[in-house]
Formats: sequence, structure tokens, C-alpha cells
Amino acid sequence: MELSLKNELLASFAWYTVIVVLKMMIMSIICVMHRIRNKAFVNEEDTKAFGSSVKGKLATVTNAAVERVRRCHLNDIENIIPFVIIGFAYILTDPAVETAIFHFQLFTGSRIAHTFCYLIPIPQPSRFVFCMSGYMATLSMAFRTLAALY
Amino acid sequence: MELSLKNELLASFAWYTVIVVLKMMIMSIICVMHRIRNKAFVNEEDTKAFGSSVKGKLATVTNAAVERVRRCHLNDIENIIPFVIIGFAYILTDPAVETAIFHFQLFTGSRIAHTFCYLIPIPQPSRFVFCMSGYMATLSMAFRTLAALY
Amino acid sequence: MELSLKNELLASFAWYTVIVVLKMMIMSIICVMHRIRNKAFVNEEDTKAFGSSVKGKLATVTNAAVERVRRCHLNDIENIIPFVIIGFAYILTDPAVETAIFHFQLFTGSRIAHTFCYLIPIPQPSRFVFCMSGYMATLSMAFRTLAALY
Repeated sequence: MELSLKNELLASFAWYTVIVVLKMMIMSIICVMHRIRNKAFVNEEDTKAFGSSVKGKLATVTNAAVERVRRCHLNDIENIIPFVIIGFAYILTDPAVETAIFHFQLFTGSRIAHTFCYLIPIPQPSRFVFCMSGYMATLSMAFRTLAALY
Repeated sequence: MELSLKNELLASFAWYTVIVVLKMMIMSIICVMHRIRNKAFVNEEDTKAFGSSVKGKLATVTNAAVERVRRCHLNDIENIIPFVIIGFAYILTDPAVETAIFHFQLFTGSRIAHTFCYLIPIPQPSRFVFCMSGYMATLSMAFRTLAALY
Repeated sequence: MELSLKNELLASFAWYTVIVVLKMMIMSIICVMHRIRNKAFVNEEDTKAFGSSVKGKLATVTNAAVERVRRCHLNDIENIIPFVIIGFAYILTDPAVETAIFHFQLFTGSRIAHTFCYLIPIPQPSRFVFCMSGYMATLSMAFRTLAALY
């Protein structure tokens, strides 16, 4: 197998990986926006520079909107990074291209839908369903990889 | 070096990587099980759908068992992902196969033992020892990689 | 493209990746040092073995220095792992060697500077600036990869 984007499987995996990692990185931006809008900072040097919503010297603030974004970001880390690692191992097993791309698309779509469910928020069990479908896509790739290696 | 599972080193690394990342992913399942059993949810839309152990409208709950699993999960993220990244760089230095596999097995065994120590929990310093042995395996691969690259 | 450290681009990426992941791993050591020095542990089995700064049976302690290191560590995870993943995809697009190495150096330098700003701490906006310059380096690689793949 060639380490090149001429390889259709590797090119497709690179595409969805960059998309889904960019989605994860956007969470940092959304978090900072909520921190600035609500003047909710967790470090004293931040409140000194950017202000605080609570009166008092260097008061740090916990804000519900900020915490929600942070939980969504952590959930991304817990799910997207395993997808990338296991997805790369899965590619090495030389899977059928259509099957592999289906896994990548299912995962990427699930995580984008999960983010909207978490941040709006949309009532449960929508977020749970999208979290599980992404999880299952990664799990399926993991078991196929182990079966090919065994 | 061939990007293929015919390469013994790459096949072995893929095997242990998938095992240890699956172990990390199981933490999500254990966490959700504890949340459901203890009706301890952190989002209001979750308590609305799945209930709350505390009376009151949409009460979110912090539960000791849930927090323990979350700490173990975060410790996995802090240690397993560096192992995967540094392990891949280490493979590129074309190390002796037995030495490399020893590193992979030491790390994987350490992290599985670490999880049992954390979740049961087993008295210290058992968890500390297994955390350090996994850490040292990654550190050893990192220094070997830097030495080969320098 | 050859999967070997004879490939200049891959060797350079491996070098900066190992450096920046080692930097991230050091956060664990600094955190444990602060926990021991301040006798601030979060698990009851830890306070039983290593003591507690607060009188009382198995009192767990939250310490400001420990929390600062943990935030810095989490910020590393949120930024360094996307750099490694997107950086690897970027390499597959066969970029100009000088341009690529500039991205790797800008990111690595930014994260090292960010850590000093966070831990000392140095007044804002220094930490913000270094966080953004590292973020922009990863973002630039991501868009170059998507443009090459499109």
C-alpha cells in the first residue's frame, strides 16, 4: 500500500479526518466566545485583562453555557481521536473501499449531528443516538481490524 | 518500509493500539452505566429524559462513582494517545522487533492493570506503579526516536 | 512517498511531534509534583497513602496550583493532538519542505511559550497570542490539506 493521496482509501480517510478534527477545533472558538460574552474566565490573569461578570477582585466565574461547550469538546476528544487512530489501523487491513468510506461518513455525520444536539440543546435521546452511531462506527472498524490481524 | 500489515512491526503495533484504544472507549460505556444506575446526569435535557436521583425540577447530580470513571478516562487520554503517536514515530526508526513489541506489551498491560486499580479501587501505590510503568514505556520510545533522528 | 525517516518531511514531522508530545507528557509530572507538595489528592485511596493537607478522615483537596496545571494539560490535549493528526494528513499532500517545517516549528514554539505563560503565569494577552499562533498553524495545514484533496 502506497503512502500517498493517490490511494483512494487514504485520501478519503484524510478528508473525513480533517473535517471532523476541524469540527472539534471549532469547539475552542465557541468556548472562548461564550467566555468573552459572559465575562466568565477561570484564570485570575484573564479576569484582570478581560473583565469579570462578578464584582470583586479577580473573581473567576463558572458559566453554564461555557461548561456545556466544554463537555461537548471533551466528548469529541473521547470519540474523535479513537476514530482517527482505529480508522488508520483499519485502512492498513486493506478493506473494501465502499465499506470503509461508509464508516467514515457515518462517523463524521454522527459527530456533526451530535454537536448540534448538544449545543442547541435538542431533547434526548437525539444526542445519545448520534453519540452511539458514531461510537458503533469506530467499534465496527476496531473489530474488523482485530479480525484481520488475528 | 512498507505500509502494510505484512510488516510484522506495524501489525503488532496496530494490534496493541486497537486493544488499548478499545479499553479507553469502554470507559464511556462504564460511565454511562454509572450515570443511569445512579440517575446522575450533568445536562438538564438528560434529567428530563432519564430522571434524577435528587428531587426538584431538572436537578443535575454529581456522583462519586461517575467522577471516578471520568478521572480514569481522562488519565487514559493523557497516556494512551501519546503512546500511539510516539509509538508510530518510533516504528519509523526501524527498531528491533522484539524490543518494540516489549514496549507495546508493557504499555498495554500497564494500562489494563491501571484501570482495574483505579475502578475497584486497589490501595495505592499499585495504581501509581502501573501508571509509571506505562509512562516509562512511552518515554523510552520517545528518547529512542529522538536519538535515531538526531 | 516512502514511509521512512529518509524522507526529510516525515523525519522533521516525527521530530517536532515527539518534542511537543513529550512537552504534553511533562504536564503529568508537574501535576503530580504539585499534588504531593500540597498534599492535594482527589481519590480517597491517595490521601490514605500519601496524606492530606486538610484534617479529617480521607479528606480530598482541590488546590489552585494543581488545577492550573490540569487546565494547561487539557489545553495541550485540545491543541497538540489535532496538530499531530492534521500534520500527518498535510504531509500526505506532498507540501514544500520549507513551508511544512515552518508550520511545525511555529506550532512547537507556540506551545512551549504557551506553557510558560500559563504556568508562571504571565499576564494576558501573552497566553492568548501563543495559543492562537499554534491554532493558526494547525488551521493553515488543515485548509492546505482540504484544498489539495478537493
